[in-house]
Amino acid sequence: MKSGIHPDELASRRARLFEHVAEQKLDGYVLFDEKVIQYFTSFGFLATERPVAFVGSAAGELIVFVPEFEVERVREETNFEHVESYPEYPGLEHPMLILARILASAGLRRVGADSDGYPGILGYAGPALSEVVGNPVAPLAPFIESLMVRKSPAEVELIRESARWCEHAHRLLQEYSRPGTTEAEASLRAGHEATLAMLAALGERFGGQQGSSDGATAGYRGQIGRRSAWAHAVAHNIEFQLGDVLVTETSAPVWGYNAELERALVIGPPTGEIRRLFGHMVAAQETAFDALKPGVTCADVDNAVLDYFAANDLMPYWRQHVGHAIGLRNHEAPFLDTGDQTRVDEGMVFTIEPGVYSSELGGFRHSDTVVVTADGIDILTDYPRDLASLTIEG
Amino acid sequence: MKSGIHPDELASRRARLFEHVAEQKLDGYVLFDEKVIQYFTSFGFLATERPVAFVGSAAGELIVFVPEFEVERVREETNFEHVESYPEYPGLEHPMLILARILASAGLRRVGADSDGYPGILGYAGPALSEVVGNPVAPLAPFIESLMVRKSPAEVELIRESARWCEHAHRLLQEYSRPGTTEAEASLRAGHEATLAMLAALGERFGGQQGSSDGATAGYRGQIGRRSAWAHAVAHNIEFQLGDVLVTETSAPVWGYNAELERALVIGPPTGEIRRLFGHMVAAQETAFDALKPGVTCADVDNAVLDYFAANDLMPYWRQHVGHAIGLRNHEAPFLDTGDQTRVDEGMVFTIEPGVYSSELGGFRHSDTVVVTADGIDILTDYPRDLASLTIEG
Repeated sequence: MKSGIHPDELASRRARLFEHVAEQKLDGYVLFDEKVIQYFTSFGFLATERPVAFVGSAAGELIVFVPEFEVERVREETNFEHVESYPEYPGLEHPMLILARILASAGLRRVGADSDGYPGILGYAGPALSEVVGNPVAPLAPFIESLMVRKSPAEVELIRESARWCEHAHRLLQEYSRPGTTEAEASLRAGHEATLAMLAALGERFGGQQGSSDGATAGYRGQIGRRSAWAHAVAHNIEFQLGDVLVTETSAPVWGYNAELERALVIGPPTGEIRRLFGHMVAAQETAFDALKPGVTCADVDNAVLDYFAANDLMPYWRQHVGHAIGLRNHEAPFLDTGDQTRVDEGMVFTIEPGVYSSELGGFRHSDTVVVTADGIDILTDYPRDLASLTIEG
Repeated sequence: MKSGIHPDELASRRARLFEHVAEQKLDGYVLFDEKVIQYFTSFGFLATERPVAFVGSAAGELIVFVPEFEVERVREETNFEHVESYPEYPGLEHPMLILARILASAGLRRVGADSDGYPGILGYAGPALSEVVGNPVAPLAPFIESLMVRKSPAEVELIRESARWCEHAHRLLQEYSRPGTTEAEASLRAGHEATLAMLAALGERFGGQQGSSDGATAGYRGQIGRRSAWAHAVAHNIEFQLGDVLVTETSAPVWGYNAELERALVIGPPTGEIRRLFGHMVAAQETAFDALKPGVTCADVDNAVLDYFAANDLMPYWRQHVGHAIGLRNHEAPFLDTGDQTRVDEGMVFTIEPGVYSSELGGFRHSDTVVVTADGIDILTDYPRDLASLTIEG
């Protein structure tokens, strides 16, 4: 199956899951979540109300369970040997009852699962897995998350590749953002051109399993002028003006793996107050870069930045923690948050994005994606952080 | 608050929910799902690991519960009077514990909810709502779905507006799909131009609460050549060739409401077998149009099409049911499926999309969005269905 991850690595991920399942004396595991199935198999599918499941048995058998109309694609695009299917959802017999029969035939009575049934998305409704197998289902999500959070070198390479295309889209966005144009104009043009460039450069290596709307994008999501202080603003198709403070966002998944690159920008010569807040934001991010290393806790990193804010009388400008893990999902646990006591390990990938927010002036936030190394971090996103480089001519 | 739905209609939706809650002698309701909150309030937000909740108390008080960094936006963009917040997720105190205190202060001990806690998305983990309030939580999802499934005239108008922009994006896609270009080139250009046209035409009426990637899109998702027989193919950046059979998809949410428009296309003069299968697909869709009316069941509609397939020896080409409901979500229950006994009512909006799939030749599927009227249906998507109009010059 075409994938950014080598089949041996996928097999080794499944072996670790199986070891965990065997320790608990379970007959096997059942996975429903699309990102979890992608992690263990590289199989990509559109998650809808039609349930999909991936099953591993104690006997070493692997079964994929899909709606009938996916069977031909699965046979052609994957190397799963055992494909089971159901006619349609909801169908005359509920797909979960059909799955239960398949599990029983494969000798799976006591199983673990990433969730006790298929998640209730897009109109799906159905019985819990424990109900149809007639036994409690051991929760596997915490163990699976503990695997997913430590990225392999191959995963880091895909996130680095994603970062390159975030950078390219961002360069175009910055170039097309000028007073008099709108965020939609700049963003659509940047995304259009960056996606074509990405497809041309990566070709088949990229194009194999992308969702319909994937590609390289860059935009503002309404974080323009005063609204840039609203970390989760939504798009307003706003026209850029001289004096605006802006916060960007980008996206460019590569085989499903995401980097995150965001920058504070200003249009026209920055005022003294803009220089002051921008400078503190950059220093707060440096503080987080310095604090992140194996052995500290996630809370330690957030507390270091909180100390910086407190020492510089910036608490009125504080609105969010330092960052989050990232990988197949664009937000993952753990969080670089004063309340998260998770120990930082080599291979974890985080966004580092403390923001400085002024209700009057707007928000200032850079987000960079970093991987934890043996003694510190490697920054995967490569884009200028200084005010001069991020000032758009008015 | 800017919205496609009048505040009086939102208030009346909340009144119906409240009536249901009062009948069960509950103290109030708690809503977590972003689409459900949007349905009752028009409040749009980015759903992440940071929980958001909307609360209604027996005393008629409405409370919105958001992370601190959303407070300023909520105050500026909505007319919620009672806004509560928590500092950050996970924070030193879990947001669900803070929510429990707010519910207790408002006198809400026995509540109903759309789900027993915030859904576990993007790394979120937390206790069930029943756990933190110390009482069982009455499930409200079935009642809420029964409201959402019957669309008001205002909702139908938004879906009709969405359909207009799906049509525009589709016209451009068809124009730009020529042998030698790729699906990515055609789709990116169509989406870029259609979104700019949509923003120019709808302006503020459209732009207020859109997610960052919303706009008008049209593409193929890899449903090209033989792959058009795979109903849920994923994009491959395939180059169009003479003789290709194609299936399109479109999207253009307006204030969150979606229409769906899909067409089977062919490149170059169609063969006899293409004419035959295309003709059956159009006839199967007509069969469904004729069968859908108030009083029948969803299963009746699917069975009418299954009868057409059986009568014409087409069962080897059958792979999916007739369609699904659509609205704020692009797939919703109920389903036009032989296993769904839901009674069809006036105001329900469905996609009608029976497909004819040949492993050798490819797939043929039109999808149109229709609203159920007093005595039949009104088709909301307006785009040619005949083979001549859908043949691209080779």
